[in-house]
Amino acid sequence: MVGFEYAKKSDNASNKNNVLSDAAVINLDHGDPTVFEEYWGKMGDRCTVEIKGWDLMSYFSDANNVCWFMEPGLEDAIRGLHAAVGNAATDERYIVVGTGSTQLCQAAVHALSSIRGSHPVSVLAAAPYYSTYVEETTYLRSEMYKWEGDARSFDKEGPYIELVTSPNNPDGTIREAVVNKPDGKVIYDFAYYWPHYTPITYCPDHDIMLFTFSKISGHAGSRIGWALVKDKEVAKKMVEYIMVNSIGVGKESQMRAAKILNVLTETCRSETESFFEYGREKMKTRWEKLREVVKQSDHIFTLPKYPEAFCNFSGKLMETYPAFAWVGCKEENDLGSLLMKQKVLTRAGNRCGSDKKHVRVSMLCRDDVFSLFLHRLASLATDSLL
Amino acid sequence: MVGFEYAKKSDNASNKNNVLSDAAVINLDHGDPTVFEEYWGKMGDRCTVEIKGWDLMSYFSDANNVCWFMEPGLEDAIRGLHAAVGNAATDERYIVVGTGSTQLCQAAVHALSSIRGSHPVSVLAAAPYYSTYVEETTYLRSEMYKWEGDARSFDKEGPYIELVTSPNNPDGTIREAVVNKPDGKVIYDFAYYWPHYTPITYCPDHDIMLFTFSKISGHAGSRIGWALVKDKEVAKKMVEYIMVNSIGVGKESQMRAAKILNVLTETCRSETESFFEYGREKMKTRWEKLREVVKQSDHIFTLPKYPEAFCNFSGKLMETYPAFAWVGCKEENDLGSLLMKQKVLTRAGNRCGSDKKHVRVSMLCRDDVFSLFLHRLASLATDSLL
Repeated sequence: MVGFEYAKKSDNASNKNNVLSDAAVINLDHGDPTVFEEYWGKMGDRCTVEIKGWDLMSYFSDANNVCWFMEPGLEDAIRGLHAAVGNAATDERYIVVGTGSTQLCQAAVHALSSIRGSHPVSVLAAAPYYSTYVEETTYLRSEMYKWEGDARSFDKEGPYIELVTSPNNPDGTIREAVVNKPDGKVIYDFAYYWPHYTPITYCPDHDIMLFTFSKISGHAGSRIGWALVKDKEVAKKMVEYIMVNSIGVGKESQMRAAKILNVLTETCRSETESFFEYGREKMKTRWEKLREVVKQSDHIFTLPKYPEAFCNFSGKLMETYPAFAWVGCKEENDLGSLLMKQKVLTRAGNRCGSDKKHVRVSMLCRDDVFSLFLHRLASLATDSLL
Repeated sequence: MVGFEYAKKSDNASNKNNVLSDAAVINLDHGDPTVFEEYWGKMGDRCTVEIKGWDLMSYFSDANNVCWFMEPGLEDAIRGLHAAVGNAATDERYIVVGTGSTQLCQAAVHALSSIRGSHPVSVLAAAPYYSTYVEETTYLRSEMYKWEGDARSFDKEGPYIELVTSPNNPDGTIREAVVNKPDGKVIYDFAYYWPHYTPITYCPDHDIMLFTFSKISGHAGSRIGWALVKDKEVAKKMVEYIMVNSIGVGKESQMRAAKILNVLTETCRSETESFFEYGREKMKTRWEKLREVVKQSDHIFTLPKYPEAFCNFSGKLMETYPAFAWVGCKEENDLGSLLMKQKVLTRAGNRCGSDKKHVRVSMLCRDDVFSLFLHRLASLATDSLL
């Protein structure tokens, strides 16, 4: 929970109404995706939603759907967008909506654990992993499952759940399951498998796949995520979890997400309006600037290299521009602490099952914050503080 | 989780677009508060909200607030409404917003448990209690707390948390804590402590008080609740819980809740527009009709009696018209099963820690459903099925 604590205490640089000063602490620990605000501003009223006082009052959206609290318009929008992008199979899948994919990840772990005979079920992910997985699977101290850390060193018997994030958070690499034992289940987190971040090389059809509205369009405040689930019993158990956890998902947010996802679909082949094209250019520019600073630093810092790949969505050979930069340093330094002295908050690599030589840096902040980050990173190298 | 399962399978009578037939199953198990839709329709555009595509994108609403994901406008609306109604002290309280009070109740149990040295902490409520408390405290199989059932028979040593719902769900009675040992904490659930349901006899100032948007105005689909919390550390721990559980609360729903709560405040002294006045008349009419059917049945059924009390909000002696009717039968019958044969779904008393002679019946359904319920209840008596 450290990340958002920092944010709360020192978010002055993330507040768009503030002018950035040299004294401003900039927070690149969390992945608040404010980078895309400009695009939505330019879209004008095209994405405006209006909700009347008597709309959306019931707990129920569609009593005949397994996920009875999901707005039918949102389900249609989700299926339509995946069909247009080709980044997930939705045929013969149940869709479960959640209060962000955070709630859905916990719903999936709970559902898969509850159908196993022996407890606790081991939960693991290959390092470096999304640090929040640790918090999500430990804070309740459930007897049903147990966080076991790095999947690569997992050698226990019995049922397990492997969390596979691809492209990976924090390091942007393309991932597959690594344990592959008969008694395991895999939850695929495809939060970043969208064409502004990475080439769409295949259309995954795994049993459980998670997506989040936040990281597609940047609407993190809406707290909307969804799961594509092959097995009806698993989908039902996830719905039961969300029912007891929060009796469904706010319908205003669902309605707005449906509107915006439909705009993504409608514009995705437009040369002038495509959000994915806009997003890719934005990410590309930032990555080029970051790589230039790293180069100028005489490679005192490190960044992962990503292979080019053919993107089925764009029909072109494309590079990968992850939402987070996994920045390392060559010497045995605590990079997070050094950056903190420069008033840059990042997520320490050891929180992600790696080491303190690495940090996760959000690439999704506003332009002025990103510029200040580059400046301070360059200073760290120039001042020979490493 | 039985309640919503039934709902899903047989919600045909709760769907406002359907015409009710004799064959329709009517669902009064859950408390879907569609009764108030008419009022909001009459308010026209006064409660319409409009959200632009670039609004509300960040995870953060106010980085300087303990509850950093709460929209400032919602906090102001909550404080304003409590001040106008006089049903809770908000001065020197932290407000924590949740995805319904369901999420907040779990956040509070988690927060209070996490600050105790020994686990599991016992969780209890005086029977008959809200059956969902059982599910909320057992589904995760947490090592931190343990559901111990009826507070009146609780005789264990050690830390405990008592849930006090007042007016009570399911039976509408005014409640106080019953255990009162030094090692206990109390969470007050004031979901129904509003002037359309019950006289406002005092302004509570307990340490943790829960409220829900659903049962005030009937906007259950928004999933907005809030807690008034005296202790900063408890508030912070609740915020941490909600952060890991769902990274905050959908901001579109918060924005709309703020708008509607403000309208409640603005109209609450109006002779023609007051929502509370409207709601009270609606509930009064329904209760009078229900009591008439019970009387006509030669009191084969029972209903609780509620004392009149002076309501500080209205300045009048008022009766209580609870959101649920706690219907009993005099003989040793399984009333829920008998009503189910009449195609009326209710919540069985044994699920609320009571007996099968009692059922909880929602009084918050639409008019046509309520009429059909009265008809079927009368038939049950007339046909001497009891």
